[in-house]
Amino acid sequence: MEDATERRGIRRAAISLAVPANSQSLRRHNLALVLQSIAHRGRPTRAQVAGFSGLTKATVSSLVDTLVGAGLVISGDPDRGLVGRPGSPLGLDPAGPAGLGVEINVDYFSVCIVDFTGAVRFERVVAGDNRQRSAESVLRSAARAAERALDEAAGSGLEIAGLAVAVPGLVDLDGVLRRAPNLPGWEDVEVGERLRDLIRQPMRTASCDNEANHAALAELWFGGEPPLRDFVHVSGEIGVGAGIVVGGELWRGASGLGGELGHVMVEPDGPMCSCGARGCLEQVAGQEALLRAAGAPARAATALGAPDGSTRELLERALAGDVRTLATLERAGAALGAALAALVNLVGVPAVVLGGLYAELAPWLTEPVMAELRTRVLSFAWSPVALSVSPLGGTAAVRGAAGTVVRAILEDPAAWFPEMLATS
Amino acid sequence: MEDATERRGIRRAAISLAVPANSQSLRRHNLALVLQSIAHRGRPTRAQVAGFSGLTKATVSSLVDTLVGAGLVISGDPDRGLVGRPGSPLGLDPAGPAGLGVEINVDYFSVCIVDFTGAVRFERVVAGDNRQRSAESVLRSAARAAERALDEAAGSGLEIAGLAVAVPGLVDLDGVLRRAPNLPGWEDVEVGERLRDLIRQPMRTASCDNEANHAALAELWFGGEPPLRDFVHVSGEIGVGAGIVVGGELWRGASGLGGELGHVMVEPDGPMCSCGARGCLEQVAGQEALLRAAGAPARAATALGAPDGSTRELLERALAGDVRTLATLERAGAALGAALAALVNLVGVPAVVLGGLYAELAPWLTEPVMAELRTRVLSFAWSPVALSVSPLGGTAAVRGAAGTVVRAILEDPAAWFPEMLATS
Repeated sequence: MEDATERRGIRRAAISLAVPANSQSLRRHNLALVLQSIAHRGRPTRAQVAGFSGLTKATVSSLVDTLVGAGLVISGDPDRGLVGRPGSPLGLDPAGPAGLGVEINVDYFSVCIVDFTGAVRFERVVAGDNRQRSAESVLRSAARAAERALDEAAGSGLEIAGLAVAVPGLVDLDGVLRRAPNLPGWEDVEVGERLRDLIRQPMRTASCDNEANHAALAELWFGGEPPLRDFVHVSGEIGVGAGIVVGGELWRGASGLGGELGHVMVEPDGPMCSCGARGCLEQVAGQEALLRAAGAPARAATALGAPDGSTRELLERALAGDVRTLATLERAGAALGAALAALVNLVGVPAVVLGGLYAELAPWLTEPVMAELRTRVLSFAWSPVALSVSPLGGTAAVRGAAGTVVRAILEDPAAWFPEMLATS
Repeated sequence: MEDATERRGIRRAAISLAVPANSQSLRRHNLALVLQSIAHRGRPTRAQVAGFSGLTKATVSSLVDTLVGAGLVISGDPDRGLVGRPGSPLGLDPAGPAGLGVEINVDYFSVCIVDFTGAVRFERVVAGDNRQRSAESVLRSAARAAERALDEAAGSGLEIAGLAVAVPGLVDLDGVLRRAPNLPGWEDVEVGERLRDLIRQPMRTASCDNEANHAALAELWFGGEPPLRDFVHVSGEIGVGAGIVVGGELWRGASGLGGELGHVMVEPDGPMCSCGARGCLEQVAGQEALLRAAGAPARAATALGAPDGSTRELLERALAGDVRTLATLERAGAALGAALAALVNLVGVPAVVLGGLYAELAPWLTEPVMAELRTRVLSFAWSPVALSVSPLGGTAAVRGAAGTVVRAILEDPAAWFPEMLATS
């Protein structure tokens, strides 16, 4: 394998200003088309890419050469020594630009690096109650963890294209965290930009979005097979969030401030919520509400995959048939089902994916959730809601965040590597 | 004024097959662009249309001439005798193709014709409990009423371009009414096609959609000023439905089966609903639930604007300060507010428009609805939800239905008048 820096040498090539804008935009479009054909079609040949894309074989070959030169695509199977032959299969380059994801949550933060093929190359969770610390202090710790991840990545020859942060709160369309009901003090924070400033290595881009949205994207990109194109992914943590995917794309609604499933009312006279309202789903089916109702002590997270110290306690009690725990999960499942039924009745999604804590608790939640969906979803009789469990575990959000960096390059490689527009 | 048939003579002109497809599609696009510039800009001149659209004045003039010839646009102000001068203002032709809307609801049906400018030219409501009759019998009555409307329209020289039907139930993306919880027996009915078959006059197109969607479109096109681009329109009738508009377009979700606000749970142990679930909003805030709770007898509709026999009773009691009625409206407002808060939390719309029955009851509903929105919408503090009342009354849905026919022509006039693609 050639050296990663060498392969990306083309990034420093000059852009020819002689190329007119319209031929450049055509090339830009076609580079993305070819790259996506390669990404989504399972190691096609040049001829197959021509078939998928409707471009001529000659054009495809030239564009593939450019993408190979930019370090985004490999031709052939390096393991078999078939590199670069015309009929050899094409694939995304695992040594191509990678993405750094950081998740800030209530009782942990985590860091993840995915390579250009979407494979996880680094992952670490740091447990600790972030409600006891200032936003700045948490971000400084996260920056140190990110720097360690970047050092490891550099050691394996990976260059990081950008940073994306997942947070448990309302993020507006400009990427500003407006409010995190379970993280007091995190108000109007430009989390992505702030974290970029705190990380010593330079980051070309920084963004921030809700953790439920990032988890839904992870499910879309790296989740169950065959991939769903229309679904809601529910991530149960201390907060409860929903990410809505329609037609294979994250749906952000009008304001970008949707998906707050945890604050749908399920019991009008229920317990008071941290948001100031009464009877929110989160107070019946959120992680801390479950632990409280089951009589289990809240314990800090201890290992990768989020707050599993306390989750393990809950799982153990449920497996042991503890009556109070089973009743708690039954009630939580019914409340979750009613809130999901409201979502399906309003938004019309045909599939629900249980993620985060709910994926682990699925054996006890599936039945009460389905019972509510069956009764409450008006269209259920001829358009049943498919309920499934995410295979991604508690790291969906951070993985989705890292994935957004890589996906942005797949969508418009020339925006990242403008020298690819210079035709030689 | 020239005769309507004469003006539309161009519809029978031959399409030149010599025009290559790409120049045709360019012309098609530009015809729509010019027509929409005229529709949405308040009587612009040719020069102003050129400015809005980026087309040359010569191209605009030629396209305007075609649109005038097709009977879609008038040039000048006929009242002032300024017809056809180059600098004279352009407008949609009130004698252009009109739309026929029919609404089938639970206790009435109605018929409406809007002309090409969107003005209502005919409107009639026929009261009667449609639950007591078969679907076919209701559709036959509606067809007779539509025929009378068409006769009147023909008398004023209006030609009808198509038919659209609004129904109180779940309509799939193919226009099939799958289920109407309050109209037993209306299952899997192709309402649009069936009504077209029953109407003696030929209809070029027929479609069918949920009444909440049509009412939201009416609000978008003919509602309050300035027009909202992101909102949910709630239509309270016997059923309660929501139409969601995002970015100036109706949002149908993944399946087209969303917007069922009336079946969001507001009281877990509340009354049984016609849908088979317990505690749906409709059972607390739907028209019949309100009448029951207020102790008012359900009376049939008597005049235009929907079921106002019983609504009037409710209004009179509220105005007279009847304690039971006021308590009923207070409870209904809180339930409606909680369901709307769920919608805003999930979908992120910044504005709510009260329509139908709720528009009339707004003086009593606004306060409890706002109280719930203020408490329950997580983003309320920096992105408050604007609550307003639709000026359209009970006829929004049927007017929206008629409007869809006209809007389809505005969006692609050449699809309706293919002879416009023949350049002379």
